[in-house]
Amino acid sequence: MALEKAFGRVLQEIRQERGISQEELGFESGYHRTYISLLERGRKSPSLKTVFDIAMALKISPSEMIRRVQARMGERQE
Amino acid sequence: MALEKAFGRVLQEIRQERGISQEELGFESGYHRTYISLLERGRKSPSLKTVFDIAMALKISPSEMIRRVQARMGERQE
Repeated sequence: MALEKAFGRVLQEIRQERGISQEELGFESGYHRTYISLLERGRKSPSLKTVFDIAMALKISPSEMIRRVQARMGERQE
Repeated sequence: MALEKAFGRVLQEIRQERGISQEELGFESGYHRTYISLLERGRKSPSLKTVFDIAMALKISPSEMIRRVQARMGERQE
């Protein structure tokens, strides 16, 4: 799986585990809800700064988030 | 320490551990030597894609590289 798509899946997964909406995550991280949506759909490629901002808002370590992205990238496409 | 600066320090540290020049790393990762130099000095903010490309060229896991960046960010400024 490509990086952007894997990142989007992991982002959505963690956000849903936390039980928060795209709007709430946007508010917490300082990004617009539509940008969160684009990231989750793999339509935007985040900067490292964005990864850190979002991980902080999701209360997850950036390195743990990236570890999950790598695991996703290693999986077969559906 | 700010993210860009911490990333630059870790990048330079790992590159030197590998015993390769900025030029060699640029060649391996597909970026220009001057861009590697700007990253190492914390003058440019990398995209997540760039982090993955560079980690691959350095033969380090992206999540491990980010773990080291986080550790650096937690340190006091020199």
